[in-house]
Amino acid sequence: DAPVSFILGPCQLESLDHARMMAERIAAACEAAGARFIFKSSYDKANRSSVATRRGLGMDEGLSILSKIRDEFGVPVLTDVHEPGQCAPAAQAVDVLQIPAFLCRQTDLLLAAGETGRAINVKKGQFLAPWDMGNVAAKISSTGNENILLCDRGTSFGYNTLVTDFRGLPIMAETGYPVVFDATHSVQQPGGQGTTSGGDRRFAPVLARAACAVGVSAVFLETHQDPDNAPSDGPNMIPVAELADVLTALVRFDALSRELAR
Amino acid sequence: DAPVSFILGPCQLESLDHARMMAERIAAACEAAGARFIFKSSYDKANRSSVATRRGLGMDEGLSILSKIRDEFGVPVLTDVHEPGQCAPAAQAVDVLQIPAFLCRQTDLLLAAGETGRAINVKKGQFLAPWDMGNVAAKISSTGNENILLCDRGTSFGYNTLVTDFRGLPIMAETGYPVVFDATHSVQQPGGQGTTSGGDRRFAPVLARAACAVGVSAVFLETHQDPDNAPSDGPNMIPVAELADVLTALVRFDALSRELAR
Amino acid sequence: DAPVSFILGPCQLESLDHARMMAERIAAACEAAGARFIFKSSYDKANRSSVATRRGLGMDEGLSILSKIRDEFGVPVLTDVHEPGQCAPAAQAVDVLQIPAFLCRQTDLLLAAGETGRAINVKKGQFLAPWDMGNVAAKISSTGNENILLCDRGTSFGYNTLVTDFRGLPIMAETGYPVVFDATHSVQQPGGQGTTSGGDRRFAPVLARAACAVGVSAVFLETHQDPDNAPSDGPNMIPVAELADVLTALVRFDALSRELAR
Amino acid sequence: DAPVSFILGPCQLESLDHARMMAERIAAACEAAGARFIFKSSYDKANRSSVATRRGLGMDEGLSILSKIRDEFGVPVLTDVHEPGQCAPAAQAVDVLQIPAFLCRQTDLLLAAGETGRAINVKKGQFLAPWDMGNVAAKISSTGNENILLCDRGTSFGYNTLVTDFRGLPIMAETGYPVVFDATHSVQQPGGQGTTSGGDRRFAPVLARAACAVGVSAVFLETHQDPDNAPSDGPNMIPVAELADVLTALVRFDALSRELAR
Repeated sequence: DAPVSFILGPCQLESLDHARMMAERIAAACEAAGARFIFKSSYDKANRSSVATRRGLGMDEGLSILSKIRDEFGVPVLTDVHEPGQCAPAAQAVDVLQIPAFLCRQTDLLLAAGETGRAINVKKGQFLAPWDMGNVAAKISSTGNENILLCDRGTSFGYNTLVTDFRGLPIMAETGYPVVFDATHSVQQPGGQGTTSGGDRRFAPVLARAACAVGVSAVFLETHQDPDNAPSDGPNMIPVAELADVLTALVRFDALSRELAR
Repeated sequence: DAPVSFILGPCQLESLDHARMMAERIAAACEAAGARFIFKSSYDKANRSSVATRRGLGMDEGLSILSKIRDEFGVPVLTDVHEPGQCAPAAQAVDVLQIPAFLCRQTDLLLAAGETGRAINVKKGQFLAPWDMGNVAAKISSTGNENILLCDRGTSFGYNTLVTDFRGLPIMAETGYPVVFDATHSVQQPGGQGTTSGGDRRFAPVLARAACAVGVSAVFLETHQDPDNAPSDGPNMIPVAELADVLTALVRFDALSRELAR
Repeated sequence: DAPVSFILGPCQLESLDHARMMAERIAAACEAAGARFIFKSSYDKANRSSVATRRGLGMDEGLSILSKIRDEFGVPVLTDVHEPGQCAPAAQAVDVLQIPAFLCRQTDLLLAAGETGRAINVKKGQFLAPWDMGNVAAKISSTGNENILLCDRGTSFGYNTLVTDFRGLPIMAETGYPVVFDATHSVQQPGGQGTTSGGDRRFAPVLARAACAVGVSAVFLETHQDPDNAPSDGPNMIPVAELADVLTALVRFDALSRELAR
Repeated sequence: DAPVSFILGPCQLESLDHARMMAERIAAACEAAGARFIFKSSYDKANRSSVATRRGLGMDEGLSILSKIRDEFGVPVLTDVHEPGQCAPAAQAVDVLQIPAFLCRQTDLLLAAGETGRAINVKKGQFLAPWDMGNVAAKISSTGNENILLCDRGTSFGYNTLVTDFRGLPIMAETGYPVVFDATHSVQQPGGQGTTSGGDRRFAPVLARAACAVGVSAVFLETHQDPDNAPSDGPNMIPVAELADVLTALVRFDALSRELAR
């Protein structure tokens, strides 16, 4: 019955200074909303639409920035891993390893992540039903690691479109693992701009409210000081200037949802 | 900025006594929740999965029951129409005419309904995008009748399954018409039981909460004293014994949503 | 084991002269391809996207034109009906009554059509699975009329898009009724142009080939001398000047399919 | 204008003896049908539904078997790779590297595969539109390797179901790269049996015919002497005893398709 927590940060690490600035502004928004957060950012965008777009700072520099953010701000940090060999080094620097949706069935990656003993946030593939996530979690828990989060980031719906089936949240919760709602990628339009993905950030807070009313353990939201000029996922990220208001509303819906569940 | 209202009743009219009993229990649940309602029931199930299932009492008896409920309980009543010729007689007996989802593109039916001057609740076809409903509303408003409600009851998602895209609620609201969320039919599994439609009523209150958090003008919920033995839509209807609790929660989410919108 | 036949014509009746010209050109294309055809055209487009688009000539004039085409050209004719009351008069003028996809679950319409004794071509709703068509056919056959054709015209796939699942053709054939493939409406993009439906006619012959290779009893193709200026379904209709080539290819694929089935 | 070729083999390598037996029977079927083939088999099922199912022989033993098959039968061989580091060793042993559908957006894997100079058969992700495959191919061709095949294995359609959109074949062909149709995995029901994927092998030859009528460069079909007891993809594989008949039909449809294209 803990209050909802948040996984927040810019999609992609840009520099230590940028990460610090974002962490500061996110911490301020969370304080205003009375919310706790995990800082999220990626050192490598390993599956972008086009080879011509920016991939990120790389693992060494990225992990070094993330552990500095962890130390300086006293917050847990999360990043995503893409190959089994990345799990152990990433686990040195971060508190939560994230498995990207496209990779949620890669057995070796799930096992390597599980073996680190860190918390694992695994995203439901856009091609999977919510009830298929039990098998995904079982791969991780076969390593003895039960610190698993199941995250919904939308399901394929025709071409270049995702839809969120909110029945999926209670269905995934039946596994007993905490459920996360990724509001940012749920409003993505994959491949929708030719060589990059599109999206509609207006709907991210709308769907996040729905998730908090239904009941989730955490909401994942990417944010940026200038989304339209961000190196990736710009169409979906929320301006950090609006973050405090968005979180305040979500905290209220979560509190009501928990009050009614008592 | 009015509070959410409710469209409630048994899917199908069974008898005057049954309608009275249901109206009484619904009125009690609404009083407990501090909510207003429109009584809904159908005199004819005109598009059932199979020809062998029960269709209903027919128009004459059905409309007579509905106008008695209106008079005795002092509530507005709603029923669905299936052919242009049914609109004028139905409009004598009821306050709101409803256009079934499969028929939402039938121009003659929309025009005949619009011409009665009654409020029209038109369901979004399972085959339509939310932005396509502007054209549907324009058919009705071409008669001079602007008393239009746009209702989401789910969208086709693979076979024998519907999904609710909650982005559709604010998209339909951009038309300026009030938006209704039909929680009962959104959890239907069309044709999912061979000769009848299946469904999962557990998710109806879940999706209704999400709708109230997002913001809607009304929630449509079918209810019955014994859903498993109801003549139609049993798998999706909520037991009337649980209605007060469901409505109370929805009223709370709606109030919070409106408070935050101020 | 009869060769594939064709249902061909302009989407919408424009005038007697236009129907004659089209029938002449279609008959010539069929003769070139060695194929038989049923002339198809609609007297009323009853479910267009927008109220501002052209609906057609109406039932009286339309049926009169269709029976003239039948007499003058010695071909069977087909038209679609939209309300139970239209079935008996239409059955006087045409050989095949067609049930539009949106209306394929309307019990009264199916019964009224069945009772005429005419052949009934019923389109699979975009919202139905192929195995759901057994219940639809059973409504018609409950009138004693077994002269039923089941027609695939695509299935909802995300927003404003249809997809053809070719597994559906043999699945529908398991009912024992002949299966028709509607190549024109399968490439429609419903509502895809704002107030009209879009489409991509390039793919109509592609999908029709696939259907003939899989095996069907008939292919439905709309055609026009100037599709881009046709009053409806222009984006999907094939120019009549290309019809002979398209049919010739389909006849070849059908012949091979039947040869291999022996 | 070359005739269609085939990518054939058991889903998973079981032993050298099993691979030899399968290659022998496949070679005989191809000779009967007058067709050429590439032998396909996997050394590792890296993304199975459940951690409890069999993964395969591993890379060393698997590649050794595949190069023996290549030498003994004089046929090209294909296998799938799952991490960048597997590409160079696999390229020593096989002629074609295959990129699994879930991994078709992993930039490092595509680049490592491209850099081997081998032919690359990349499967369209179930979550991608056919027009999105141009970006995928561009990642590979950025290494200077233009020896690319684009393969359709179905698209997500609701839960636990795939659908083949045959418009996708000509759309992918617009890239200029040869297009392959994977008939086996297109009929898969992902996750459809709880801890394994289901499927319906009856439809694999049906969809393969449709593909040959539309026009493709190659058809991918998995086959086994006893599919119901195969370690993976049993529900979708064709019994090798039926292979000659299936291939003979496909060769005929392909020949007709090419004749008509002249």
